[in-house]
Amino acid sequence: MKMDSVPELYLEDLKTGDRFWSDSIEVTKETIFQFARQFDPQPFHLDEKSAQESIFKELTASGWHTAAMSMRLFVTGEFKPVGGSIGLAVDELRWPQPVRPGDVLKLETEILDVRKSKSKPDRGIIRIRNLTTNQRGEIVQTFMAFVMVRRRPAA
Amino acid sequence: MKMDSVPELYLEDLKTGDRFWSDSIEVTKETIFQFARQFDPQPFHLDEKSAQESIFKELTASGWHTAAMSMRLFVTGEFKPVGGSIGLAVDELRWPQPVRPGDVLKLETEILDVRKSKSKPDRGIIRIRNLTTNQRGEIVQTFMAFVMVRRRPAA
Repeated sequence: MKMDSVPELYLEDLKTGDRFWSDSIEVTKETIFQFARQFDPQPFHLDEKSAQESIFKELTASGWHTAAMSMRLFVTGEFKPVGGSIGLAVDELRWPQPVRPGDVLKLETEILDVRKSKSKPDRGIIRIRNLTTNQRGEIVQTFMAFVMVRRRPAA
Repeated sequence: MKMDSVPELYLEDLKTGDRFWSDSIEVTKETIFQFARQFDPQPFHLDEKSAQESIFKELTASGWHTAAMSMRLFVTGEFKPVGGSIGLAVDELRWPQPVRPGDVLKLETEILDVRKSKSKPDRGIIRIRNLTTNQRGEIVQTFMAFVMVRRRPAA
């Protein structure tokens, strides 16, 4: 799939049930450590021995690292609203399975709802579900979000 | 406030209404660009001119960058459960105000609920609200989360 050839989308191009896919991203020990040093410096994300002695029993990525990688997959994937992806709210963010070194993550975006703004005629709001999966198809992250999308200008 | 002298906490040390504070973190253009290049490569987070031409009208941090910085403030702050902060679920993640270069962020954590696990006698679950504010006291991020906390071992 060639992501830079994907057409940009207006609200009128979207409907409930539409699905969009992403490229993939490989998780490495080094990127887990790097994110943790900057943003989640807990011993079990910073070195393997502490990870083995922790409740996780092995090295895992910070949930916020998984969230950040999922944003990268979202922004670089098929779903390309005109003017960018502007998230307004995130609900029910969950990490049902840990992310480990060597995992290869992908994102699937499903449109749950599409509606026009009542007050602003140039835009609308969609509700999406973003599912991040690993190479075994296990869900490692899920959330729902409201995203602002522009309406197609009158011809 | 000297964060490394804060005592580590068990479930029995926590009650509804308790509040915990953090150090602060300064947001810079360079850290906004750096996070965006890695995790949210949209033009309005990557350069100032695109930001001025976007719906934001100025450079702002990715919401996921604010989330990651807030995790750093949480982990390095006063709230130190024994064994680390292990988040199980995040709800109602919102960014009511944008984060801009020069902002200085702080985090406040409030305990909303404390309960013992029915199935696992060595732990419990607390519900917290995390508020991230800027130097003017404006809320730039808020969410609620369930966090696992260990119970104090019998003496």
